[in-house]
Amino acid sequence: MTNRTETAVKKRVAIIGAGPSGLAQLRAFQSAAAKGAEIPEIVCFEKQANWGGLWNYTWRTGLDEHGEPVHGSMYRYLWSNGPKEGLEFADYSFEEHFGKQIASYPPRAVLFDYIQGRVEKAGVRDWIRFCTPVRFVKYDEASGKFTVTAHDLKKDSMYDEVFDNVIVCSGHFSTPNVPEYPGFAQFGGRVLHAHDFRDAMEFNGKDILILGSSYSAEDIGSQCWKYGAKSITVAYRNAPMGFNWPDNWKEVPALVRVDETTAYFSDGTSKKVDAIILCTGYKHHFPYLPDDLRLKTANRLAAADLYKGVAWVHNPKLFYVGMQDQWFTFNMFDAQAWWVRDAIMGRIEIPKDKAVLLADVARRVAEEDAGADAHDAIHYQGDYVKELIAETDYPSFDVDGACEAFFEWKEHKKKGIMTFRDNAYRSVITGTMAPVHHTPWKDALEDSMEAYLKN
Amino acid sequence: MTNRTETAVKKRVAIIGAGPSGLAQLRAFQSAAAKGAEIPEIVCFEKQANWGGLWNYTWRTGLDEHGEPVHGSMYRYLWSNGPKEGLEFADYSFEEHFGKQIASYPPRAVLFDYIQGRVEKAGVRDWIRFCTPVRFVKYDEASGKFTVTAHDLKKDSMYDEVFDNVIVCSGHFSTPNVPEYPGFAQFGGRVLHAHDFRDAMEFNGKDILILGSSYSAEDIGSQCWKYGAKSITVAYRNAPMGFNWPDNWKEVPALVRVDETTAYFSDGTSKKVDAIILCTGYKHHFPYLPDDLRLKTANRLAAADLYKGVAWVHNPKLFYVGMQDQWFTFNMFDAQAWWVRDAIMGRIEIPKDKAVLLADVARRVAEEDAGADAHDAIHYQGDYVKELIAETDYPSFDVDGACEAFFEWKEHKKKGIMTFRDNAYRSVITGTMAPVHHTPWKDALEDSMEAYLKN
Repeated sequence: MTNRTETAVKKRVAIIGAGPSGLAQLRAFQSAAAKGAEIPEIVCFEKQANWGGLWNYTWRTGLDEHGEPVHGSMYRYLWSNGPKEGLEFADYSFEEHFGKQIASYPPRAVLFDYIQGRVEKAGVRDWIRFCTPVRFVKYDEASGKFTVTAHDLKKDSMYDEVFDNVIVCSGHFSTPNVPEYPGFAQFGGRVLHAHDFRDAMEFNGKDILILGSSYSAEDIGSQCWKYGAKSITVAYRNAPMGFNWPDNWKEVPALVRVDETTAYFSDGTSKKVDAIILCTGYKHHFPYLPDDLRLKTANRLAAADLYKGVAWVHNPKLFYVGMQDQWFTFNMFDAQAWWVRDAIMGRIEIPKDKAVLLADVARRVAEEDAGADAHDAIHYQGDYVKELIAETDYPSFDVDGACEAFFEWKEHKKKGIMTFRDNAYRSVITGTMAPVHHTPWKDALEDSMEAYLKN
Repeated sequence: MTNRTETAVKKRVAIIGAGPSGLAQLRAFQSAAAKGAEIPEIVCFEKQANWGGLWNYTWRTGLDEHGEPVHGSMYRYLWSNGPKEGLEFADYSFEEHFGKQIASYPPRAVLFDYIQGRVEKAGVRDWIRFCTPVRFVKYDEASGKFTVTAHDLKKDSMYDEVFDNVIVCSGHFSTPNVPEYPGFAQFGGRVLHAHDFRDAMEFNGKDILILGSSYSAEDIGSQCWKYGAKSITVAYRNAPMGFNWPDNWKEVPALVRVDETTAYFSDGTSKKVDAIILCTGYKHHFPYLPDDLRLKTANRLAAADLYKGVAWVHNPKLFYVGMQDQWFTFNMFDAQAWWVRDAIMGRIEIPKDKAVLLADVARRVAEEDAGADAHDAIHYQGDYVKELIAETDYPSFDVDGACEAFFEWKEHKKKGIMTFRDNAYRSVITGTMAPVHHTPWKDALEDSMEAYLKN
């Protein structure tokens, strides 16, 4: 009878998404169970047929094989755009996974393998329902529980299940922000968002226009350059990226309009182009969440309405992981996931007074706003990671050392935007130095895991 | 007090989608009101910012400005692929709209204008809530009513409303069926579905591979040919289309695999290609409908589970318009919409006995299956249109005459797949002959309404 009673009162927790954030959350619960704790029943709903989120590459664009929006925004030949030493799991090092230290800017397939290695070891795959998007979530005030409506795409069947907590881990780099400029409907070439960019070879020999001045613009432009685009023109709205670009790369001010063949810029110049790639960012998009549960935030380090950056201030039984703009990634998701786990398991108490939660958010916003530059922002997010880690049993690591890797990385980018990936950094988890990669990035046209690991 | 009571008992009807089917439904209700009938309160939910459904062209692909799946599957330079004499509204002729008879294969913009003209005249735009996708629909057995959860995208706010009836008019040519073939992840060029095809100019000078053997394959291939593709290779699974293709057009058997540059076919041949266009059809896709309300049907003339082709047999307060495969289009949607209106308004009685409804569906399926060829199929659907029209006050018209236009059209296609659009047909609504268009289709590179109407 005791067992039945325990089962009856066991909490049920829904995790939405099995990408880096969702997998961190699964690993967090599993690690507690491995240490002997009784953990809630966990159900992870994943739209895709495999885990890995954005790191699960697909050639598809637009809608997937089930008619769902394609989650993936990654492209062939993508290499990490920051050093792996800034994102290493504190509980699962690159050396543990690969049996040796590896170079610092791994291609997508290598990072996917690394992410996967930890959760395979943890044995949490059975907790995930693949090909199962969440259609809707409702909170019932009377019962204090959530009803999740999920769609089993393989059976083409929807069902409702009730949960005590919901953790939203569906990411915010999947729904493109797609502005319109005059003439797009008349332009004769392809107009696409970075979300739909898959293979730089398509643009070999072409004149490419890129809109934007952040990571996508920088990296997709670099890919096109590396794989033989004829020219790259990047139009910015506020300021140029200002790197030491190759000769066939030009930064120009804002796009004003296009006609069938040509783009016209705000400085009066124009350029005939073959394709336009909109590197104009992503939206936080939760079509399955009603107003009382739906996060609306700018893409910033201090996200709106999240106590400790994770607990929904308007109903702290609901959590969001990974919803901030990111210098720190995998290790920050870990810090958040461990904290959320402990909040759900009652090891951490979330204040009952909503004013306290709101004050926490306000303080984080003010502190981010007080920062002057990227250096401050990196420290700010590093401090946030430290704050969360200190409250859980996630393995402590040298967060300041990871910040240093970011600072070095930024210097290396300034020195050479097409050579920064040829540098190596020291692991803050194992203390070992990464090898310099066997081939300069600009000459390494093959991006398989096998090719990369030949050190 | 009487008024208040009447208001209180007035039925509320939700129409999902303001494309050709939804607009037919709005016009059906408005025409009853214009004749003095008291009609229910109508709310039409439309995801896009304008009406017209597929005919509302967008340069966008994948996800739209709000992160919603793009509805449009149409491309620049699209001309009707069947004669307008087969789709003319019985209550609003082309001559009424344009003030003269026009040629038989209008470009998209011309047909959009025509569709819009009727509903502008009817004055039903205020019944539509634009930028408002439906997130979910639930039926409550106790109250006998539907709850529709809609998302006002401009306010980014969701809300529930209760309705007596729901009419699904969201179409079934918007969610692509996208098969995968070995090597797609390695192919260096663009792989896209017809849904994302926008401008044939992108493929000027290219070797194009098309998969499929239906209308999209035929028409997108023809567009690419017309606008200067270097070669068109069409791979079919069952049988070639078999038209008299131009010299740089070839039909080959099934695709087996691709590598970085080349496609390999089941007859052992191969072809180096620059892009692959999947003309592999569309899915009926209703992610906002739970199992008890969701239509699952093949794309055929006798759709599954719809009494009279429109009433959901499992709950005939729910209707679907336009869910069949189509020879007849706008005029069939009209016939269905008038019938649905009358069923909702109590002018037509739907049998209470579910066995009767199921028998109706079974009979339609058997009769379609008994047909031998396209000729039979056209007559079959023509008879269906006649059957519905006979039960309402939709203006009777010469359906057999429209069938004849289809038969002539098929002969014209056999004679010349790049010249069939240069023919003209007689209107079954006004009896006048269409003029022959001023320019052969293959030479008419400009597709604006202004250019087309210069007759």
